[in-house]
Amino acid sequence: MKPLDFLDTCTLPPGFRASGVHAGIKPDPEKLDMALIVSDEPETTCAGMFTTNKVQAAPVQRGIVQMNTGRARAIVVNSGNANACTGPQGVRDMEEMAARTAERLGVEPDQIVVSSTGSIGKPLQMDPVRKGIDLLVPALKDAGGNEAAEAMMTTDTRPKACTTRFEIGGTSITLAGICKGAGMIEPNMATMLAYACTDAKISAEHLRLALKTAVDESFNKISIDGDTSTNDTVVVLANGRSGVELTPEKEGWDIFCTALRGVMFDLAMKIVWDGEGMTKFIELRAKGAASDDEADTALRAVANSFLVKTGWAGTYPAWTRIVDVLGYCGVEIDPEHLGVWYDDLALLEASTPALPDSDALNAIVTSNRFTVTVDLGTGGEGRAVLYTCDCTEEYVRINMF
Amino acid sequence: MKPLDFLDTCTLPPGFRASGVHAGIKPDPEKLDMALIVSDEPETTCAGMFTTNKVQAAPVQRGIVQMNTGRARAIVVNSGNANACTGPQGVRDMEEMAARTAERLGVEPDQIVVSSTGSIGKPLQMDPVRKGIDLLVPALKDAGGNEAAEAMMTTDTRPKACTTRFEIGGTSITLAGICKGAGMIEPNMATMLAYACTDAKISAEHLRLALKTAVDESFNKISIDGDTSTNDTVVVLANGRSGVELTPEKEGWDIFCTALRGVMFDLAMKIVWDGEGMTKFIELRAKGAASDDEADTALRAVANSFLVKTGWAGTYPAWTRIVDVLGYCGVEIDPEHLGVWYDDLALLEASTPALPDSDALNAIVTSNRFTVTVDLGTGGEGRAVLYTCDCTEEYVRINMF
Repeated sequence: MKPLDFLDTCTLPPGFRASGVHAGIKPDPEKLDMALIVSDEPETTCAGMFTTNKVQAAPVQRGIVQMNTGRARAIVVNSGNANACTGPQGVRDMEEMAARTAERLGVEPDQIVVSSTGSIGKPLQMDPVRKGIDLLVPALKDAGGNEAAEAMMTTDTRPKACTTRFEIGGTSITLAGICKGAGMIEPNMATMLAYACTDAKISAEHLRLALKTAVDESFNKISIDGDTSTNDTVVVLANGRSGVELTPEKEGWDIFCTALRGVMFDLAMKIVWDGEGMTKFIELRAKGAASDDEADTALRAVANSFLVKTGWAGTYPAWTRIVDVLGYCGVEIDPEHLGVWYDDLALLEASTPALPDSDALNAIVTSNRFTVTVDLGTGGEGRAVLYTCDCTEEYVRINMF
Repeated sequence: MKPLDFLDTCTLPPGFRASGVHAGIKPDPEKLDMALIVSDEPETTCAGMFTTNKVQAAPVQRGIVQMNTGRARAIVVNSGNANACTGPQGVRDMEEMAARTAERLGVEPDQIVVSSTGSIGKPLQMDPVRKGIDLLVPALKDAGGNEAAEAMMTTDTRPKACTTRFEIGGTSITLAGICKGAGMIEPNMATMLAYACTDAKISAEHLRLALKTAVDESFNKISIDGDTSTNDTVVVLANGRSGVELTPEKEGWDIFCTALRGVMFDLAMKIVWDGEGMTKFIELRAKGAASDDEADTALRAVANSFLVKTGWAGTYPAWTRIVDVLGYCGVEIDPEHLGVWYDDLALLEASTPALPDSDALNAIVTSNRFTVTVDLGTGGEGRAVLYTCDCTEEYVRINMF
């Protein structure tokens, strides 16, 4: 199998259309704030994964139930208001969003996926939402994926999209994804919305299978600030337009799974690179842990430490704070055999400072991307990887008001 | 029993002397960087509590063993370098600190408590440390407590001290404490050094008993940034000079415990008020939890959320982020019956926004001290309290380099 190309744009597969409009939820008339993605195939299957937070926005509660049907025809999204912590009115507003979109598209309301993202705890402004739905439907077009991506943005500084194509039995299949997310991002599903569309024909059951693996190896491996949102959603739609049917037993399945994982990974990395106020992308690796789970726990604690993240923002040799985190994060370590590397430069080996060349260290900590590897010293085989970023003054400014 | 007065100064009890000097560990000659507290009574008892971090600075490892003897005559402290993650050399340097101080004072090295605070991972500069010890001993004086407090400071903006006096059977007893700490502060022992001295006569065993309760209700109830340090230490010395012997069976015991808890609580609050870059003091209260432990877990998660803390720094109605934290912090909640109050103003009741008067809310969130109460909605009796602060751009600036 030849390596897949991943393009930084959303080119929707045949049989999908999308649109993005300014409905008026955001005050700035230049900013798009509602998106719609539609499949023109009646037998479109779907699979979804949602936040693990016990407090769930109304659309998430509905989405979890809806995914059991395995069928969906459209996804309608508003940005600027998360419709979370909005009580019974929030549920009614969401149902109206679904019903109005369904009526305009001529499908059943239970075929509409609804997502909201933005401020929590404020009632959804339904007049703009109604107007937005009425604008979205006539605006649908084959090339509308990037507008939809733009319309999902909140504190994102840029839209995030990815498309890949591959051939199965001589037929070209397209897989395209868009997402949003920049803050309230935590490993168990980033605070984010992500949608992917393909023209392969896949049962809902098999789509769930592929999605779970793809999310575990992408959105569940990133952290901006350790805060798991109430609204996290990832949904994939397969409309079968290509006529190529895929099951785990068939030859093309692995290619599809690789493509889905690749698109999700690409989108997840775009979220980290757009982390609120971020200036540095950090790849965290753990080894020498008692288990993979313990390695993962240790990395999440490191990625969520105020002191480590603010140290990365500047030039403080945050490795000492990383060692501090390893000591309190609750996993098994050997305090006499800890190790820390920045890229390939050893900073601590067998719990003794390696006193690296300060120019070499400075070159790493002032670059915008580096890898930090920790050895927990237990001698175990446990390993993990996590992608995160620094925490800057700008992050604080973004979240103060 | 009449209420105790707690004074914002260190007035050492009879039989104690202290000093603070500039030894040269910190480059600025205006800054004190070594402290010494000495008891002139040979039978002085001691008790100590230390960080729960598995990575412990050399002085902490030694202190834990030392406290088993129940005896100490002096505490020597350096600031500017934590002597943590310094390998075998760090252990030798610490032993030399103890031996030199003991020799100058004419006592045994195992009677000397050693503490270090400051940067992690750099070898201790022993020339200034040796010079500092030589300066500290002749500088000892009855009124030296406040200088010792000043010499312990790192990112602290002011020294922290507290003294209380009480009478038992007509005899006056003094209890004085000093501490340092402003960052890397987490509920399971703040990142801090704290020392208390009394002229009561108390066995080491009983002193441990009183200290544990006092620390649980003071230093273990505060959080600045959720990072537990490698060096946390709290030590109390009792030199018996007053001749008043206290045991749990005797009448004055409760007064002593109240005084010790009061001094520790006063010092702990001073740490929060001096939190790195802080502008607001937040008292967090939880109710309606399944247990006190779950209430405590929930409050720690709230206090350690980047989004909540940065929201407090500005005027963002962080209650929505608090609800988000309650959902992911892992404790039992009822998502339909959550409540949040800022002071007495309801923001959320039965999971429905209370839409409070915005002027009233604004007055609270712009003040420098308020109380946030959360109801986890389980109907349980579990409660907790925790003291914390906001996270500002200044916090990031302090920790970047």
